[in-house]
Amino acid sequence: MTGLGIIAGGGELPGAIAECATEAGRPVFIAALKGIASEAITRFQHEWVSLGETGRTLSLFRQHGCGEVLLAGKVSRPKWADVKFDAKGFSKLPKVLAAAAKGDDALLRSLVEVLEGEGFRVVAAAEAAPALLASSGVLGKHRPSARQKTDVELAVTVVRALGAFDVGQAAAVCDGLVLAVEAAEGTDAMIARIMSLPENIRGTAGVRRGVLVKARKPTQDGRTDLPVIGVDTVKNAAEAGLAGVAVEAGGALIVDKRGVIESANRLGLFLFGFS
Amino acid sequence: MTGLGIIAGGGELPGAIAECATEAGRPVFIAALKGIASEAITRFQHEWVSLGETGRTLSLFRQHGCGEVLLAGKVSRPKWADVKFDAKGFSKLPKVLAAAAKGDDALLRSLVEVLEGEGFRVVAAAEAAPALLASSGVLGKHRPSARQKTDVELAVTVVRALGAFDVGQAAAVCDGLVLAVEAAEGTDAMIARIMSLPENIRGTAGVRRGVLVKARKPTQDGRTDLPVIGVDTVKNAAEAGLAGVAVEAGGALIVDKRGVIESANRLGLFLFGFS
Repeated sequence: MTGLGIIAGGGELPGAIAECATEAGRPVFIAALKGIASEAITRFQHEWVSLGETGRTLSLFRQHGCGEVLLAGKVSRPKWADVKFDAKGFSKLPKVLAAAAKGDDALLRSLVEVLEGEGFRVVAAAEAAPALLASSGVLGKHRPSARQKTDVELAVTVVRALGAFDVGQAAAVCDGLVLAVEAAEGTDAMIARIMSLPENIRGTAGVRRGVLVKARKPTQDGRTDLPVIGVDTVKNAAEAGLAGVAVEAGGALIVDKRGVIESANRLGLFLFGFS
Repeated sequence: MTGLGIIAGGGELPGAIAECATEAGRPVFIAALKGIASEAITRFQHEWVSLGETGRTLSLFRQHGCGEVLLAGKVSRPKWADVKFDAKGFSKLPKVLAAAAKGDDALLRSLVEVLEGEGFRVVAAAEAAPALLASSGVLGKHRPSARQKTDVELAVTVVRALGAFDVGQAAAVCDGLVLAVEAAEGTDAMIARIMSLPENIRGTAGVRRGVLVKARKPTQDGRTDLPVIGVDTVKNAAEAGLAGVAVEAGGALIVDKRGVIESANRLGLFLFGFS
């Protein structure tokens, strides 16, 4: 049972984790959520499963020798009425629905409990693919100024203050002013609206100002939902006129680290791992 | 010097305050900020002034017998390079710029200090126009459910947690999930983006769900920037599928209270003053 089972939601993270584990010589099997997971995961051993097919998913992991399982990638809250359940999925439904009412973190924790109750060890992406973790300090060729580091500190404080209520993972700050705070809309939508703010409180492609920070919520279980950035995060931040992106060293994942650093260098953004 | 001087920013609030004071038999003079204040204030005694014409504004208030002054209405952060200053305005500039770097609340406090240093008493809108304050309990004909009251409590907690860092005044919550948190974009833009969220986590015009809360920031000086709602707030909340609007009793202003309650009743939203 040395295999790693991955329940794959959307985005590039599940594939990046699978790649890391495969490079480390570990067998990987992906249960790819239908309509949610990226086609990119099909280069690994996989089956497509529905969100409610809990019994089938667990059987697949057992068949493929996966003793450890992880959840990765974005999953927006389902319309429960539209989800197809198998018998096992249906038996877990009341517990999961009760948790869902308490917020995203509670929902994810309840899924972890279901998996653990079935004898799997649920591992964090950071454990299964440690190469994805952000390291500390200046990661590209551009350096944050003292002013930008102060903005990073304020953004981190804001995200952590909100995190206690299971809100979002990101904030943008420019010269001491909080431009945007993430809630249910997600980081990309949050970054996009910075361009709609008055030009005098934000940066532009010509004069970059302000920082994007993604940080862990204090309530967050590292096994479910660490902050993630990728090439798109850097591109979006650049389009919004921001001067740089900061993530928690050892507490955030960078998908395609080389590509992210190259993009940041080319677009003139700093990339910083705070601790 | 029994007159009330009003420095009028944008929106309907300055006119509503002037109306309240006038109805109470008090002489009113409005210094209307050029390019910012609403044309609606021209029904009161007024002059148009630029943001940097501090000396002229103070002289006008003195000429019109205003011993008390208040600041009301939205003023977005100016491009300082575009502001015309008179001598007095110029002399106060370094102080105001230093405050502006610390955030909106610090900026407003510095303006209050300038006025007080010139011998004016700076009063709160709540003091000059107490009829605008939200009262406690159910304000229209629709009542919040227990679930909605719990959502109101969470939204209040979120706004207050953020308020310590001078962020925004509003949040929207639906069934325990924080849909949106206001930062520099303002409440209307925050409400508008709720419609872009997946339908299963929010309400619709058919099935209203979730609440909008506007609450004071703990750092907020009541003399500058109390939360305000008006008819548009209720209309926007209705368009976003929300079930109701809650404001702090005694800590928020309702412009056109009768119109706001009528809109809420007609559109099926509750209106609630929490304490």
